[in-house]
Amino acid sequence: MKNRSATKPLRLQRFAYDGLDRVIHERARLGMLTSLLAHPKGLPFGELKRLCGLTDGNLSRHLQVLQAAKFIEVSKRFAHNRPQTLCRITAQGRKRYLDYLAVLEQVITDAAAAVEGQSDKKRARELAPS
Amino acid sequence: MKNRSATKPLRLQRFAYDGLDRVIHERARLGMLTSLLAHPKGLPFGELKRLCGLTDGNLSRHLQVLQAAKFIEVSKRFAHNRPQTLCRITAQGRKRYLDYLAVLEQVITDAAAAVEGQSDKKRARELAPS
Repeated sequence: MKNRSATKPLRLQRFAYDGLDRVIHERARLGMLTSLLAHPKGLPFGELKRLCGLTDGNLSRHLQVLQAAKFIEVSKRFAHNRPQTLCRITAQGRKRYLDYLAVLEQVITDAAAAVEGQSDKKRARELAPS
Repeated sequence: MKNRSATKPLRLQRFAYDGLDRVIHERARLGMLTSLLAHPKGLPFGELKRLCGLTDGNLSRHLQVLQAAKFIEVSKRFAHNRPQTLCRITAQGRKRYLDYLAVLEQVITDAAAAVEGQSDKKRARELAPS
């Protein structure tokens, strides 16, 4: 019995999706990280803000969370003689984001299987002789 | 100029992912809805709890949120002479979940394009004559 209870949770928690890291999963941060993944050389604060449709305050808050998790780096530089804040995804951030994506793909696979299964059953009912 | 500013936000908010409904996007609720989509006839409270790896309290709290949004229905019945709470996804919940999934697929497409683009560039650099 002991062995059984040790292995059972894995099967039972089929839809737990523990790999959906909450730091990444939050909607605004998911958009920010996807955007930064697409721009590996980094994006200025203003451009990231516009791409993600966020306010200054919201973007700052979420940047802090991502920076604390070491998923992004924020640096200051001068561009056209004006100070600019540059945001860039780190190697660790990239890796964790890709791990997260694999779980997201699993959610989609599970949902697609559920929808497929149901339309298969519906088709079978329609085709069955009455 | 007016026309331009009217169309610009659509292009600019490329990574906003507004369609990621917060009621569905929360990790536990995403698992619950995926689980209920896969079991359209409904699941007893205890089974849903185990499938999603949640505690009684957590599951109750999230069920209330999903019920208030009319994404699920909760009913009481007797099974083997014992009272049972049955949770089921509604037609509206199913529709909204599928809309949400389409946006989730977009996130994955965007991320895959970003990763692909970078490996293409790397390959091109490696192949370029030095």
